[in-house]
Amino acid sequence: RGSQGEFRAFDPATGEALEPVFGGGGAAEVERACALAWAAFDAFRETGLEQRAAFLETVAQNILDIGDDLITRAMAETGLPRARLEGERGRTVGQLRLFAQVVREGSWIEARIDPAMPARTPLPRADLRQRHIPLGPVAVFGASNFPLAFSVAGGDTASAFAAGCPVVVKGHGAHPGTSELVGRAVQAAVASCGLPEGVFSLLFGTGNEIGTALVADPRIKAVGFTGSRGGGLALMGVAAKRPEPIPVYAEMSSINPVFLMPAALASRAEALGKGFVASLTMGAGQFCTNPGILLAVDSPDLDRFVAAAVEALGGSAASTMLTSGIHAAYDSGVAKLAGSGEVTTLARGLACSGPNQAQAAFFTATAEAFLADTELQEEVFGAASLLIRCPDVAAMVAVAERLEGQLTATLQMDAADK
Amino acid sequence: RGSQGEFRAFDPATGEALEPVFGGGGAAEVERACALAWAAFDAFRETGLEQRAAFLETVAQNILDIGDDLITRAMAETGLPRARLEGERGRTVGQLRLFAQVVREGSWIEARIDPAMPARTPLPRADLRQRHIPLGPVAVFGASNFPLAFSVAGGDTASAFAAGCPVVVKGHGAHPGTSELVGRAVQAAVASCGLPEGVFSLLFGTGNEIGTALVADPRIKAVGFTGSRGGGLALMGVAAKRPEPIPVYAEMSSINPVFLMPAALASRAEALGKGFVASLTMGAGQFCTNPGILLAVDSPDLDRFVAAAVEALGGSAASTMLTSGIHAAYDSGVAKLAGSGEVTTLARGLACSGPNQAQAAFFTATAEAFLADTELQEEVFGAASLLIRCPDVAAMVAVAERLEGQLTATLQMDAADK
Repeated sequence: RGSQGEFRAFDPATGEALEPVFGGGGAAEVERACALAWAAFDAFRETGLEQRAAFLETVAQNILDIGDDLITRAMAETGLPRARLEGERGRTVGQLRLFAQVVREGSWIEARIDPAMPARTPLPRADLRQRHIPLGPVAVFGASNFPLAFSVAGGDTASAFAAGCPVVVKGHGAHPGTSELVGRAVQAAVASCGLPEGVFSLLFGTGNEIGTALVADPRIKAVGFTGSRGGGLALMGVAAKRPEPIPVYAEMSSINPVFLMPAALASRAEALGKGFVASLTMGAGQFCTNPGILLAVDSPDLDRFVAAAVEALGGSAASTMLTSGIHAAYDSGVAKLAGSGEVTTLARGLACSGPNQAQAAFFTATAEAFLADTELQEEVFGAASLLIRCPDVAAMVAVAERLEGQLTATLQMDAADK
Repeated sequence: RGSQGEFRAFDPATGEALEPVFGGGGAAEVERACALAWAAFDAFRETGLEQRAAFLETVAQNILDIGDDLITRAMAETGLPRARLEGERGRTVGQLRLFAQVVREGSWIEARIDPAMPARTPLPRADLRQRHIPLGPVAVFGASNFPLAFSVAGGDTASAFAAGCPVVVKGHGAHPGTSELVGRAVQAAVASCGLPEGVFSLLFGTGNEIGTALVADPRIKAVGFTGSRGGGLALMGVAAKRPEPIPVYAEMSSINPVFLMPAALASRAEALGKGFVASLTMGAGQFCTNPGILLAVDSPDLDRFVAAAVEALGGSAASTMLTSGIHAAYDSGVAKLAGSGEVTTLARGLACSGPNQAQAAFFTATAEAFLADTELQEEVFGAASLLIRCPDVAAMVAVAERLEGQLTATLQMDAADK
């Protein structure tokens, strides 16, 4: 069904290709999707709030109605366990229903009316009105690590629909079957709600051509992206170079610093160490909130934290990553850290027992080394973390000021740390 | 007082250089201003709302306390008349006081507290809190056409102060004396309110070096810009290429389309024609809302509009533009339109009687020609406007869809146009 080659999904737990074959899209498919989206925009933006809310709720129900086929396909394509994917489906449906509630409630439009003041001096005031309006068709790029909640009908798509924007999704190549199931659920909702078909399109494509063409298309007015820094920055570059630049809302690359403050370490170093390893290895370290960097003042309490973490990590099983590409990038990032003269390996998890498994890794370096080498703050996506040993709290602040913007930061502190 | 050469202001109405000589800043001044701003940020962001509001009100009062020296200097540097500048001073002071009110009221912080729900299933909810926080030091680039309200202590500066962000202003080279008077008023307010001096700096510089260095500095976290498209796009490029890209809030280049609908033309073509010329020539056409393009369906009523506009424009005096550079760009833009094979000159204003005066210009072209030549929508800053004659309303829509984003759009329509 595409003009640019064919591809299949792979089961990362076995390394085997999955049926069926998918057709990759190219410039022709981008052109068609954008033309349809642009043609649908005026009608979709003029839908009433109730109709738009009902559409979002229909999408949610249609996703649930796929039943277990959705879960088993997503399990095969991502290596994620059933409970995790069932939870993610609940979150996805919950997001769609939440946006339906918000749409129906209506205050998000921030309608504001400043009535005319014909008698105002020195000049009369006209009737002034202000409200939010939809931007136009939105391109959404799904993430590999949340095949439902940050993918075809994830939060970006739900919010664009809620605002009255048609959506063109570039499906992630790692879970095309999951994407197609969800895409058909959205498509059916578009039809049953009487909306123009261009309100939603789903494209697949190998390589970067299709994504670049999509972001460059003048009918696309905003981009939602969740994924790698390289991919996100490339799309931001395309968007900024358009004759009419458009916003790219990108979530990418966070190492989520954890600050272990002295009093907290003194009172609960072992518990913090065990908790850290549980957080580090959860979901093969593929959550966007994974703790990639720890900051602490050197002390015997910190040694207790490290000992507890090393012990916990030593018994931690390797687990399957989402794709062979992500797994290869993890291994290469870990090897780079392990090979750095400034970095010491504190512990590794249990050895791998199958394809695409990641062996967790815990490293340390000094604050001085970190401040001298900006590459040490590059994200290694997966269960790898770097402890920065600081001579004092001032050095922790200096390291913190050098960090890039982050999705999360965690302060482990007790009353005496305030 | 600068490391990079010297410059003077010029009186555009006489072409003569004004005393005194100003020192141009360079990399050393940018470094110093950014270091001071960064050092001041933590203290300034922690000021209470009342203290910040009082600071804004002190700035406003200090500007008023400069008295007539501010108005006479601004008149000499910009060629703008007294009443216009007194009005702009009122607006500037009003903006500062408005932001003081907003700061004091406090709801702009959008503080939100979702209390803990320890009994929630399947997982307990932690106490969640959200609020707006200041980004960090902000670079502000003043505009030539509003030497007070969009300059050193204009809206960008007022809003940054209100949010708790230190400000580094790159003063516009066309009104350095005005800028220095206002800058000293802000500086005095910083001192009398007990704030760190880095809360505000004012830099001058010839050429682009200083602005580029300012936007590239890692301690600058956002940019406010009002000015030319070339300048704004250049700074956006610098900001996007930083290791940590930052937002550039740029107001630049708008041709403010006016849609003359058939029924409105039928009922009041002459009044619309006269009103259009008054709007076109106000302030030598240098308002950001200047009507640079008109769209209408060809008809005898449109001919009546054109006849009225041509008559009004023929009696319209030339007026002094802000700088010799702006005047030269206006003359060159008008000559380019007049020389285009697709464009017809409908009328010119009265001839010039002094240096840097602009002779207003009114052109026309067909919708077909406009759609074929994207350069016809380039802004000619000043009192020049282009009427697009359309065969029908559908062609007006086609032209409208081809327009870039605009600051304003005006619909002249009567009940029968709905």
